[in-house]
Amino acid sequence: MKSREVRLVSRPVGLPKPEDFTVVEIDLPDPGEGEIAVKNVSLTVDPYMRGRMVDRKSYVAGFELSETLTGGAIGRVEASNDSNFSVGDYVESSWGWREAWVNSTRGVRKLGELKAPASAYLGILGMPGMTAYVGLLDVGQLKEGETVFVSGAAGAVGSAVGQIAKIKNCTAIGSAGGPEKAQHLVDDLGFDHGIDYREGNLTQQLMQCAPQGLDVYFDNVGGDHLEAALNCMRPNGRLPLCGAISQYNATEPVPGPRNLAIAIGSQLTLKGFIVSNYNHLRDDFMRDMTDWVLSGQLKYRETIFEGIDNMPDAFIGLFTGANTGKMIVNLE
Amino acid sequence: MKSREVRLVSRPVGLPKPEDFTVVEIDLPDPGEGEIAVKNVSLTVDPYMRGRMVDRKSYVAGFELSETLTGGAIGRVEASNDSNFSVGDYVESSWGWREAWVNSTRGVRKLGELKAPASAYLGILGMPGMTAYVGLLDVGQLKEGETVFVSGAAGAVGSAVGQIAKIKNCTAIGSAGGPEKAQHLVDDLGFDHGIDYREGNLTQQLMQCAPQGLDVYFDNVGGDHLEAALNCMRPNGRLPLCGAISQYNATEPVPGPRNLAIAIGSQLTLKGFIVSNYNHLRDDFMRDMTDWVLSGQLKYRETIFEGIDNMPDAFIGLFTGANTGKMIVNLE
Repeated sequence: MKSREVRLVSRPVGLPKPEDFTVVEIDLPDPGEGEIAVKNVSLTVDPYMRGRMVDRKSYVAGFELSETLTGGAIGRVEASNDSNFSVGDYVESSWGWREAWVNSTRGVRKLGELKAPASAYLGILGMPGMTAYVGLLDVGQLKEGETVFVSGAAGAVGSAVGQIAKIKNCTAIGSAGGPEKAQHLVDDLGFDHGIDYREGNLTQQLMQCAPQGLDVYFDNVGGDHLEAALNCMRPNGRLPLCGAISQYNATEPVPGPRNLAIAIGSQLTLKGFIVSNYNHLRDDFMRDMTDWVLSGQLKYRETIFEGIDNMPDAFIGLFTGANTGKMIVNLE
Repeated sequence: MKSREVRLVSRPVGLPKPEDFTVVEIDLPDPGEGEIAVKNVSLTVDPYMRGRMVDRKSYVAGFELSETLTGGAIGRVEASNDSNFSVGDYVESSWGWREAWVNSTRGVRKLGELKAPASAYLGILGMPGMTAYVGLLDVGQLKEGETVFVSGAAGAVGSAVGQIAKIKNCTAIGSAGGPEKAQHLVDDLGFDHGIDYREGNLTQQLMQCAPQGLDVYFDNVGGDHLEAALNCMRPNGRLPLCGAISQYNATEPVPGPRNLAIAIGSQLTLKGFIVSNYNHLRDDFMRDMTDWVLSGQLKYRETIFEGIDNMPDAFIGLFTGANTGKMIVNLE
């Protein structure tokens, strides 16, 4: 079995460029004892991967130059020397950025038969969906009837956050870049308010949407969004800190929120989290979210690129606004 | 009974000036039904009062111009029409900034006989001590053996934070302005390290004192201190946000920490708190802290001004570094 794979040839400075990547073809061995051979079906690119491309301390190890990149992948077992995996089983692995792989089953999650399209298990039923679920309900301690603001609301995590808030009978406000995305939040996803953050002062827009203030701000952006949200938080508000996409490509430090002192008087809790430390909630997540997806309460949107050669462009597109919803690379 | 009292005549801009205050003498009535007459013995000035002197939303109501200021006070009952209070009882009230008062006993806490000097009940056994106690142990969730950094460590709250950390077998690092204050932390209060924040890069100084990183940062300062602490936090670190003294006199917004995104990967919790919402821990606090004070494990230092006429100067001195430990105004 052959596989074509994407490697990093230079560390991106600022916005990544196509020349930072290369695609190579390799021959895979037959699976050894305890190993499986898997053909990938659907691959993911995510903003956090940008952080792994620089040469500094992070919470996940950095990517090495000239090694094949890794990331989420849904694949189908083609040959198996592990009795827990059968040919035809679908699996989730971190052996993405490649067409196929042969390796041990350590860290590989068996999905068996799929109830939804393969790509859904990279998004709404995968890491982004689980990030939304644990971030809003556990880290954010959402209660019925509260008001939630989420930034990056047209993205994979953000769109799920707003919809889960609605399922929990809360008011959902989302921000996105541009009037179409803002309208999409309301028309297609059922948010109460969609804010185009390019359209004037963010604090004022928030105060108009939520004159009573915010109970939870789910932060995917950092920077000016965090500052605006702090201006509008109600006492005892919670701010799950999930991402800081505004800062991933910054070569200079981005100014922090100048109004963090508001957190003292209003007794706010800002809490950073990494979804991989919430595996104790995985069963709850899979049960609830699969139900909500199959019943149509929880919608998701994907931007799909086709073929391994287009994967670098898909990744770069994350930072230029090319996607609405989850960015996916399908291989079949 | 006569009382001389301090009033605000103009709202300070930047550093408060003596001309922003005036002292007036008034005649007090005899106590009515349910009221007591109290002669104040010891008064407090605190940085948070600066926030109440401006005309904007805060978590406590603002001071009105031409009304007598309020604040913590320890006094002695001189006459009583409330059967729960006897002549000679010591009481804690918010009727500070004045020599004496007559009022109902609502919000007045009976201390009875004092086990320590009156001023201690405004500091180590009062609001600052309780702020340190609940902020470190409850908000900060301190565990034995951890490493604690506290800013403003020569102040009333900060000096208690470091000493409680030592009592709990933790490593205590404090920062203060100037080499004498930094040395005082180690020599007199038993901190493991005292940092003079004026002496070079704060992040580098912290990394030298705590190469293993910080578990708790008790923030009394905000600004550059918070940014330096974020650079040094260990995973799952907690940051009780107690004060932002660097910002009280700022007329322009102070830059926020540029590195808040570190909170995501390291799963940090930043939590603002107000001590008045932790009254459920008051009995624990009084029992533990009185024991530690009487046994000599917990030391406190005071800077004492004498007489009501010097109270504005005592207050202004909070922002010019005139105090080590709690700033007190004694009336007898």
